[in-house]
Amino acid sequence: MKKTNDILIKSAEIVAVGTELLIGQTLNTNTHYLANQLTLLGINSYYQSVVGDNPERLLAMLTTALARADLVITSGGLGPTADDVTMELVAKAAGKELILDPVSKQSIEDYFNGIGRTVSDNNWKQAMMPQGALTMPNNNGTAPGAILVFDNLGKRKAIACLPGPPSELELMFEQSLKPWLEKRVNYKFEHRFLHMMGIGESEAELEVRDLIERQTNPTIAPYASPGEVCFRITQRKLRGQTEADLISPVVQEIKNRLGQYIYEDGERTLPEIVFALLKEKNQTVSFAESCTAGMISANFGAIAGVSEVFAGSVVSYSNSIKERILGVPSKILQQYGAVSKECAEAMASGVRKSLDTDLAIAVTGIAGPDGGTSDKPVGTIYLGADYQGQLTFEKHMLRGNRERIRTVASLRAFHLAWRCLKEKSDN
Amino acid sequence: MKKTNDILIKSAEIVAVGTELLIGQTLNTNTHYLANQLTLLGINSYYQSVVGDNPERLLAMLTTALARADLVITSGGLGPTADDVTMELVAKAAGKELILDPVSKQSIEDYFNGIGRTVSDNNWKQAMMPQGALTMPNNNGTAPGAILVFDNLGKRKAIACLPGPPSELELMFEQSLKPWLEKRVNYKFEHRFLHMMGIGESEAELEVRDLIERQTNPTIAPYASPGEVCFRITQRKLRGQTEADLISPVVQEIKNRLGQYIYEDGERTLPEIVFALLKEKNQTVSFAESCTAGMISANFGAIAGVSEVFAGSVVSYSNSIKERILGVPSKILQQYGAVSKECAEAMASGVRKSLDTDLAIAVTGIAGPDGGTSDKPVGTIYLGADYQGQLTFEKHMLRGNRERIRTVASLRAFHLAWRCLKEKSDN
Repeated sequence: MKKTNDILIKSAEIVAVGTELLIGQTLNTNTHYLANQLTLLGINSYYQSVVGDNPERLLAMLTTALARADLVITSGGLGPTADDVTMELVAKAAGKELILDPVSKQSIEDYFNGIGRTVSDNNWKQAMMPQGALTMPNNNGTAPGAILVFDNLGKRKAIACLPGPPSELELMFEQSLKPWLEKRVNYKFEHRFLHMMGIGESEAELEVRDLIERQTNPTIAPYASPGEVCFRITQRKLRGQTEADLISPVVQEIKNRLGQYIYEDGERTLPEIVFALLKEKNQTVSFAESCTAGMISANFGAIAGVSEVFAGSVVSYSNSIKERILGVPSKILQQYGAVSKECAEAMASGVRKSLDTDLAIAVTGIAGPDGGTSDKPVGTIYLGADYQGQLTFEKHMLRGNRERIRTVASLRAFHLAWRCLKEKSDN
Repeated sequence: MKKTNDILIKSAEIVAVGTELLIGQTLNTNTHYLANQLTLLGINSYYQSVVGDNPERLLAMLTTALARADLVITSGGLGPTADDVTMELVAKAAGKELILDPVSKQSIEDYFNGIGRTVSDNNWKQAMMPQGALTMPNNNGTAPGAILVFDNLGKRKAIACLPGPPSELELMFEQSLKPWLEKRVNYKFEHRFLHMMGIGESEAELEVRDLIERQTNPTIAPYASPGEVCFRITQRKLRGQTEADLISPVVQEIKNRLGQYIYEDGERTLPEIVFALLKEKNQTVSFAESCTAGMISANFGAIAGVSEVFAGSVVSYSNSIKERILGVPSKILQQYGAVSKECAEAMASGVRKSLDTDLAIAVTGIAGPDGGTSDKPVGTIYLGADYQGQLTFEKHMLRGNRERIRTVASLRAFHLAWRCLKEKSDN
């Protein structure tokens, strides 16, 4: 089967199926995920489409997409109801019959047994597959996926059908479609990510412009998100060949120039890095939050297992709580105000004492839209840290609306935590 | 001009332009926003597309979309650089010339003067508009938009060009494109939203199935998001006619059946409703958060002006903080454990006393993936409330992963706050 089914994939088009997307009920995160994955695999994508659960229009869409790309990836429309017509139309577009796939039938049976329910009649529909299709198991749900390779107007084409729920789609892509695709592209792409904070995108780009300009392989692609800059360094290798590592020397050169801003050579987020450092040192952290109002704690709390190192936090919106719970001297509040270096440091040592942790990070500032003054405009943020009795602070002037200011202030808080933990480690 | 430009719009297709969408760098929130707006206007949409900043493919895409819909809405590609080709290709697709639009030229000049910068040469490009286009001002940026109505293969068609940055696109749609569209649809749609909590989507649907089944006008559309159900009731009115209000009797009937679950007849979120009630009563709130770890506080802190009613919170991840800061008796922790009705209530009264507020809400539970037992599996959540000394609690068994459990637990906390504040108001 391998032989007759062989195809080389240079381009792909994502077709998301679902009326809920057309009426704006659901945000199309599946296409975003798949587009990013195709880019990482080095597969070009020139169009993306969305079409409703309508047989005629879906068939027209598949025909159009097959004329434009080597591979069409569909998401959605694999459910058990009469609405779900993707597999049927994919078979039609490929000129194949739908037949009952015994492996899929068995796995649907197993899934329902596992959750202690009996299979309803319409669930069997999900085991109907185009003849000759390679089925992909669904390890987060009932609908199996399929890959179909066939001749279309004299050219080799492929269609891959993935389920709509993101947790099912992503797992199936990762476990089945990605390994299948990796064997059918000319090149193998290797990526490395350098994450930076404390420098703007254009400034960072300027520092390595000569590297970017003379790049052919590896390539350097800068990305920016609120408060952060990331470089993706990508080496293209011929599939099946052993080639020299061209990424490491480039990474080293970037580190030589921008090392002070780089907090991660990899794919961990800042909260994950702080968590790992604390765990490694067997230490604990607490937060005192004013303008971020719990966002730092909530982001940290999103990490499974964080209770090992995370004692708790105080959200001190009012000045009286800064005084009573965190022990900020009223003199500081009167003399310097709540948005000051002095208050940020006092909040940090207050929460550290009160919650008895090794490290404490505090943030106080003006998130807006109101509350700014000419001295301290909206976006003025003070961060304070108390690491085993050693106090430090940072002042930032952030741009953007209330949400952006709080988001970037939270990131900055993790960055300060990282700096404290890191500096002590380096010594 | 009005006369020759007249068009009746029954269908529209959204074409998002941008290579950053194709490579999965940017999530396509613009199409989601526009699709939702078209639905609210009663305009059908059968396809959505994305295409890169490539002249040939963009022109092909516009031609395809014009053959399928009365109106094509583009987003993106209106910037000043050579990459930005949307306006040029739209002119080509409509068979028009690009000419310098004096109004747009002036507004670009004004924008740059306003931010104290001089206009760079390539910014003038943004004032080039297809002949006969209606320009739409950009009140959040430099690139004006355009609406073009023309004959295409014997049919009246329209293209509307919006800028890519969401803040610019949404404001331009709201201020210019939406009013223009409202005059060119046959019907006017009026919507009302009923938000419910404490009942599942299918159960809620079952309660009003007879209303849904006999619906023609108004229609009832149920939506579900984690922890919540919403009904959209829509009346179709002939444009320019005064028609009876058919929505209110249906809303009344739904309220008769499901009133106990409805927390909002309108478009406010639960945190906004809690904020409004507290402000109205001139009262304050505090939170004690365990498994949600600051998420409730952060969501509340997202509301501008919330400091009027929000004193602060304690995130008590560890038991020792529950004891020391919140004053939860160690007897309770030993006898019932941290995840119990008793602990939730003690946390609530502890934080209320300590932060001196009228209302306090506490949450403690098991967000997973680890930490569950057969007695208290992952997803077990206890909420406690202390409203002016009166204690209440709720127990919930939530499904899903760590993120979903924390999200729904946070929503539930606001629902409990609403219940406390509301019940006292009703007396």
